Amino acid sequence: MTRRPSKTITIKTVAELAGVSPMSVSNVLNNRHKVRESTRQAVMDAVKTLNYSLNPAAKSLAGSGMTRIGLMYRNIENAFLSSILIGSLETTNRMGAQLLLQPLEVGDAGEVAAGIQTLISNGANAILIAPPYCEIANSRGLTKDAPVPIVALSPGDDLTDEYCIRIDDFAAARDMTRYLISLGHKDIGFIRGAEHHLISRTRRDGYIAALQEAGIAIRPELIADGDMSFESGLDAAHTLLSLAPRPTAIFASNDDVAAAVTSLAHRQGLDVPHDLSVAGFDDTPIAVKIWPALTTVRHPGARIASEAATLGIMLARGGDAPAKSATHLDYMLAIRESTAPPSG
Amino acid sequence: MTRRPSKTITIKTVAELAGVSPMSVSNVLNNRHKVRESTRQAVMDAVKTLNYSLNPAAKSLAGSGMTRIGLMYRNIENAFLSSILIGSLETTNRMGAQLLLQPLEVGDAGEVAAGIQTLISNGANAILIAPPYCEIANSRGLTKDAPVPIVALSPGDDLTDEYCIRIDDFAAARDMTRYLISLGHKDIGFIRGAEHHLISRTRRDGYIAALQEAGIAIRPELIADGDMSFESGLDAAHTLLSLAPRPTAIFASNDDVAAAVTSLAHRQGLDVPHDLSVAGFDDTPIAVKIWPALTTVRHPGARIASEAATLGIMLARGGDAPAKSATHLDYMLAIRESTAPPSG
Repeated sequence: MTRRPSKTITIKTVAELAGVSPMSVSNVLNNRHKVRESTRQAVMDAVKTLNYSLNPAAKSLAGSGMTRIGLMYRNIENAFLSSILIGSLETTNRMGAQLLLQPLEVGDAGEVAAGIQTLISNGANAILIAPPYCEIANSRGLTKDAPVPIVALSPGDDLTDEYCIRIDDFAAARDMTRYLISLGHKDIGFIRGAEHHLISRTRRDGYIAALQEAGIAIRPELIADGDMSFESGLDAAHTLLSLAPRPTAIFASNDDVAAAVTSLAHRQGLDVPHDLSVAGFDDTPIAVKIWPALTTVRHPGARIASEAATLGIMLARGGDAPAKSATHLDYMLAIRESTAPPSG
Repeated sequence: MTRRPSKTITIKTVAELAGVSPMSVSNVLNNRHKVRESTRQAVMDAVKTLNYSLNPAAKSLAGSGMTRIGLMYRNIENAFLSSILIGSLETTNRMGAQLLLQPLEVGDAGEVAAGIQTLISNGANAILIAPPYCEIANSRGLTKDAPVPIVALSPGDDLTDEYCIRIDDFAAARDMTRYLISLGHKDIGFIRGAEHHLISRTRRDGYIAALQEAGIAIRPELIADGDMSFESGLDAAHTLLSLAPRPTAIFASNDDVAAAVTSLAHRQGLDVPHDLSVAGFDDTPIAVKIWPALTTVRHPGARIASEAATLGIMLARGGDAPAKSATHLDYMLAIRESTAPPSG
């Protein structure tokens, strides 16, 4: 049996006694980073004074032995993010950990940095970050020296400073485009997400790769801007459907945008799929609740979150820390009624 | 300052020392129910032996001072339930409490009873129950003598043994039916939920009341069975659209079912709303992502869950326990494109 602390001691208690920041305490106790020797000594003295036994008791410093997993996200109305929240919560509950939420208001780098600090101060032993904030945190160096493990949920590519749980978005987008080409489509529109969102570029690159390997010239006007919202999908669809020649298929970067394309097509009297094939990405619940049911890429959000939470909990509980690594889960194409060979 | 426990003591520790069940300890400490005097004495002796100061320290027996709110639910893919989960989680996080999940597999009375026990053993200080399980628990007497407060999330009517946070479903369904009548509809189909779900009856009664007050005869064949799922909506819509005369409007018990009606209408070449008006209930995200956008009742799921979690936390933290009471939140009709006067 590990000796338990004789009273509730928090990281803050140790930090106050040692005269250092809570993050320094965490750095020392997790033995993971370079810390000045004077800082380390002050922390260890404080720990000794407080009669605290280390490792794994150290793990329980923050929060009375409860493992706490932070989750940073924004825009929970988005169905994919909602599935991430549910997957994280079900896993932390099942494994007896607590989920700490850190919703973002704006999503800029400053807010992401502050959010990481807040989660650590609140005792998070590992932090899961939703896209695109995991990418922003990585590119700005916010996670390079983080005192707790950081797990990126579905980033658009493997990242240097974070554990990554994702699917191969490039291959998935390429496969969906190959499928549309196999039906006979050549004029295939693409609606991408916001440029700062890495996933937008990766999926667009997959679309371009499939066209190139099929010897189909890239028409830049067929790539329309969006931001993954239904509203942006209406605008992008309006742009694409005004082109001459009009695309015979549109591949949207997520299902909400594909639903918007379908909605506008109906409004313009176009028959989906005979006048226009529509494909989405994510396979969120809406895919089978619109008419016609949507062909899309199955992107397992809840499973990604569940694997990420499991990894975070294992690392927080003292599991060996592997080198930063990426896990690629399986995706699949869900072929439904919204895609067909072009007519005429 | 309240004296804090000198080491981590759980309800289980007290129960073991007293030789009684954890639920008896909870009953005694919450001072809310008739307990045999011998049991009470044994518990108080154990508490004294463990050097534990009561009230509010008693509140922290289960789980080292952390307030724990249980949530019992099933079928989280349903958008309304997903909003309940998110509302509960955001509130427990904001108020520094922990959310314990208790997902149900089957949803029968035995599983509900066992789920309540499990949540209490795991230290839940209050329990929120999603529909229809809050109704099942109430009608089977499972919550009558519960040792912690039970809050029903959106039950179909006020319940005797649970705090209720809901909208007035009867009035909301009546108002939507009145609106359809005001457009000129007389042959209005209704798709209800499962009969054991109290909300199904309440909403149907509202539909009937509006027809009666308008002097429109009730045609029983216009009331079709469903179970709130998209699939059941396809079946019910098929039945209703086969009637002669065909209804000119269909009011569905939730948005997924209304989406199914819309989908089938498109499939049969009917124009919504000119050949068929469609109305839903809940105003989940899908309402504005199908074409045409759905007229529906705004049912604030996240707010209901948030108010329920707040009430549970306040009661768990020693707030005065009001008599069991029901809170009715506002609803509104969201009038969109799927409803219009009947043509011809």
